[in-house]
Amino acid sequence: MTTHRFTATQWHNVLGTLPAALTIASGDTVITETLDAHGIDRDGEQRAAEPNPMNGPIFVTGAEPGDALRVEIVRMTPIRATGWTRASLAGNVVDPEFVRGLPPRDKVNWRVDRQGLTVTLDPPVPGLEHLTLPLEPMIGCFGVAPELGQAFSTATSAENGGNMDYRGFGPGATVWFPVAVPGALFFLGDCHATQGDGEIVGTGIETCFEVELRLTVEKRRALVWPRGENATDIFSVGNARPLDQALQHATTDMFNWLTSEHGLSPAAASHLMGQVVRYDVGNVFDPAYTMVCRIEKKWLPKR
Amino acid sequence: MTTHRFTATQWHNVLGTLPAALTIASGDTVITETLDAHGIDRDGEQRAAEPNPMNGPIFVTGAEPGDALRVEIVRMTPIRATGWTRASLAGNVVDPEFVRGLPPRDKVNWRVDRQGLTVTLDPPVPGLEHLTLPLEPMIGCFGVAPELGQAFSTATSAENGGNMDYRGFGPGATVWFPVAVPGALFFLGDCHATQGDGEIVGTGIETCFEVELRLTVEKRRALVWPRGENATDIFSVGNARPLDQALQHATTDMFNWLTSEHGLSPAAASHLMGQVVRYDVGNVFDPAYTMVCRIEKKWLPKR
Amino acid sequence: MTTHRFTATQWHNVLGTLPAALTIASGDTVITETLDAHGIDRDGEQRAAEPNPMNGPIFVTGAEPGDALRVEIVRMTPIRATGWTRASLAGNVVDPEFVRGLPPRDKVNWRVDRQGLTVTLDPPVPGLEHLTLPLEPMIGCFGVAPELGQAFSTATSAENGGNMDYRGFGPGATVWFPVAVPGALFFLGDCHATQGDGEIVGTGIETCFEVELRLTVEKRRALVWPRGENATDIFSVGNARPLDQALQHATTDMFNWLTSEHGLSPAAASHLMGQVVRYDVGNVFDPAYTMVCRIEKKWLPKR
Amino acid sequence: MTTHRFTATQWHNVLGTLPAALTIASGDTVITETLDAHGIDRDGEQRAAEPNPMNGPIFVTGAEPGDALRVEIVRMTPIRATGWTRASLAGNVVDPEFVRGLPPRDKVNWRVDRQGLTVTLDPPVPGLEHLTLPLEPMIGCFGVAPELGQAFSTATSAENGGNMDYRGFGPGATVWFPVAVPGALFFLGDCHATQGDGEIVGTGIETCFEVELRLTVEKRRALVWPRGENATDIFSVGNARPLDQALQHATTDMFNWLTSEHGLSPAAASHLMGQVVRYDVGNVFDPAYTMVCRIEKKWLPKR
Repeated sequence: MTTHRFTATQWHNVLGTLPAALTIASGDTVITETLDAHGIDRDGEQRAAEPNPMNGPIFVTGAEPGDALRVEIVRMTPIRATGWTRASLAGNVVDPEFVRGLPPRDKVNWRVDRQGLTVTLDPPVPGLEHLTLPLEPMIGCFGVAPELGQAFSTATSAENGGNMDYRGFGPGATVWFPVAVPGALFFLGDCHATQGDGEIVGTGIETCFEVELRLTVEKRRALVWPRGENATDIFSVGNARPLDQALQHATTDMFNWLTSEHGLSPAAASHLMGQVVRYDVGNVFDPAYTMVCRIEKKWLPKR
Repeated sequence: MTTHRFTATQWHNVLGTLPAALTIASGDTVITETLDAHGIDRDGEQRAAEPNPMNGPIFVTGAEPGDALRVEIVRMTPIRATGWTRASLAGNVVDPEFVRGLPPRDKVNWRVDRQGLTVTLDPPVPGLEHLTLPLEPMIGCFGVAPELGQAFSTATSAENGGNMDYRGFGPGATVWFPVAVPGALFFLGDCHATQGDGEIVGTGIETCFEVELRLTVEKRRALVWPRGENATDIFSVGNARPLDQALQHATTDMFNWLTSEHGLSPAAASHLMGQVVRYDVGNVFDPAYTMVCRIEKKWLPKR
Repeated sequence: MTTHRFTATQWHNVLGTLPAALTIASGDTVITETLDAHGIDRDGEQRAAEPNPMNGPIFVTGAEPGDALRVEIVRMTPIRATGWTRASLAGNVVDPEFVRGLPPRDKVNWRVDRQGLTVTLDPPVPGLEHLTLPLEPMIGCFGVAPELGQAFSTATSAENGGNMDYRGFGPGATVWFPVAVPGALFFLGDCHATQGDGEIVGTGIETCFEVELRLTVEKRRALVWPRGENATDIFSVGNARPLDQALQHATTDMFNWLTSEHGLSPAAASHLMGQVVRYDVGNVFDPAYTMVCRIEKKWLPKR
Repeated sequence: MTTHRFTATQWHNVLGTLPAALTIASGDTVITETLDAHGIDRDGEQRAAEPNPMNGPIFVTGAEPGDALRVEIVRMTPIRATGWTRASLAGNVVDPEFVRGLPPRDKVNWRVDRQGLTVTLDPPVPGLEHLTLPLEPMIGCFGVAPELGQAFSTATSAENGGNMDYRGFGPGATVWFPVAVPGALFFLGDCHATQGDGEIVGTGIETCFEVELRLTVEKRRALVWPRGENATDIFSVGNARPLDQALQHATTDMFNWLTSEHGLSPAAASHLMGQVVRYDVGNVFDPAYTMVCRIEKKWLPKR
């Protein structure tokens, strides 16, 4: 198992079948620094164009269509003292006529305290002088090349992952993506210091991180949607609009997971999901919304 | 402050402007037993027709349009040893073509352990022998008469509350409803022993409870949507389809709450919500879906 | 068959189980004058409150739950020289961020030429001096009392009809409503001089009409949704949000119509609908949207 | 102006930035034969993989980002005696629980009468023996390479066109696409002998055509969505889910068209659209639905 320090020199605004920037073995670890959503680096320099420039793709030897790529998010270390957000709720998350009265979508600065592991508005905003948020790092956009030779903007998401903007994609989480091309072709970027559910101002606190990931091929585990796991829960991810359809995808995927890998009958899977499932809203800002269907591991069948 | 033991003798399948079954003073407490969603009582006898027969309405003296009715859920004691659910995910929560393969929507029995405060499938279902769920009681359907002389089926929900099927409506929660008619005319019923997010089999564990509530008029507090509070959070509730619109209603209401009652500017409210908001899915089964926009009190402006 | 001249003296803002204002026999004709959507009469006098005050209800002797009420729209004669509309697209029909730049929703006047049977903006609007629209009268809101003792605002629509705002509900059309209460309890109002698809400024050209209708009970014809017919087509009406769900309701109803009353197998109904169906958008402004699924009669099975 | 007979030798399942199969001058005409949606040619031979294999791309000299590509559909001549459809409504166009009872989605044959210009089920289906439909050819999937290096499956559609499955894209129609890459890179395929609104069985009558098109660059006409024109109407096309969002895109685009190219004020554009607009449903089957916002030319401002 090798650890690769990967320094990106070019970035991509799509997840697609592009030439590999790095080739690794299954099980290897990658450490890399990401730009923010606008392509600004740790030194405040514009290095790439928006939206959400991606490091990668990383070719994982042995990955083939029909496999799953397991991504363990080992560590996310903030590497810039500033982050930014937007100063208004997005138009699509409020009642339509209410949009007429929303404030402008100005870009606003936050201070990232890398020792204290907190974030604060800088300068302070009246009424929010008390607001010191804990750093809760997450990857906004990551995933693999989609099937058919498709390539999707990093503004959106699909079966292959992408711009899901889900709080749950932080250190300690493991995520699986469906491999659709040889080598999987993994991309990442757009990390946030923290973010509310839904990314309803259209941003988390956008900044730069050093991210440490372990990438492993799981052979012959055909997935449709991204799946994940953390210390307590397993979860399925659906990406689509409206939110209802994202929820249908995530729910269908969890049902299939419980029946195919956990041995439950369709009725038993229904019973379990009906009474213990939790839904998390990833984003409701991007072209495709993200809904997560989650179950505590303690409720899974014993094996 | 009086405590009323209210024994319903008739039940209603709508929330509307109906003759009061009980009249109380603001601040009084009501203790009442509810039927299950099919109108079955604690003794297994059919007492009323589905859907979700309601106790009430309760006329709260002094409540006028433009006021809010505060409902504190003090206690919910299970009063029947059985509950029931459906044996299949609902058609609308999975991918459409997947519906062809869902199991039948049979009615299934659960045992409610009123000493141990747990629920278990009865008879056991293979693969779920371990599944002993803690009792987490909640009110599925409650609210007040809507404006304009409207009357809504207890199968659905709207600005006046109704069949929201949200897990958060349990003991310890306080809920506010917009008063639209003199006396508010409060209804309740359809209590669940527990329920997953979304009520995705179309039911929680449907059973009977003795419910203790305190009802208080807050004068001149005009609301649009139901709001709530528990030990740690405040929350706004939106009821509509699709889920996107329910989310828009709840988000708009939270924004209005923060700007009108918590003194935040529109930009400050956006900053706060953008980074700390949480969304809970109430139900995604009923004609109107329910989305809850929630904020931890510790993030609210200090006063 | 009697013709009743019905002069409303009170109006209703809900469709519900209210005392009959007129009782007629099945097959009778009713002639009545409607107010506009704001409750203004032919003389410009405010007679009732918005939204959409209704004449009625009309009790049709013999109508029972499980029957259909057939409504033939015989004639609509404009009785006021003015109509009005709103000066801006509604927020919900454009891209959310685009709402910030929409013009104000001012009330604008139109001249109704009752001899020439045309409507024109009054005063003229630059760029639209040429715009003389033919009068194409339609009933914006009509229907029957819903089941379960429900009562719905005339701002919205449901299985019982209501505020569907569909261009096709004009003279020459026949409409069937599902009878849910004895006497059916028929309501009407909110007539338009003309209207585009979708009612996307939130109004048609709102004015007053003398409407002539024939109401007939069709025994034991249980419907779920409104259905209609004109010289060339039959159609099913679905009312819901999002538009996708309104379309699902209308499509399911047409499928059921073709299989239950026109003798087609499910596969044959699919073939026919797949290649000849037409969809019309009723409104996309009201709380429930309206989608119409329409088939030319010439394609129906011969009998 | 040259006429090119273009014989495709490879086909694509995405619209993206791929090597040109043919280079032409602006204003040239192209005549080409298309495969059906399953990649079957005029002789019944499988030539390419599904979904919807595309001829192209065609590089149009001089086309640059910020231009529009005008596509005139001159002629569509059927070149195969058979077509096919599916035998069931798609799951997503009916009420969710209704899906359980739909018939199987079998592939069904139609006879294409190339002299009589009609299509009929072959073998006949009971109840539909009379059903001889006129040939109404249309292009199901066509468009240009999208921006950012994206590539989209021919199963779906977006700003660049794609699988819109709109009846209006037949001979006599002119369509404009937003050029996002040098040469525009135009693709086409998936032609239908006829199709109902919505493509609700998931297919039109799928067959092969010889298509004649004229492709012309309109310099510096930046579009967001496809637009079109026929003898009587102009129209804007929105592609998204839910249908509500497709409608928002199309409505916003028509509003922008009227204000930017037809000289109307925002209020005047609202008046015109409010009272004369028509909506056509393209498809409600593909991942992105298609809604068309249409206005008769006779209502446009005179110039």
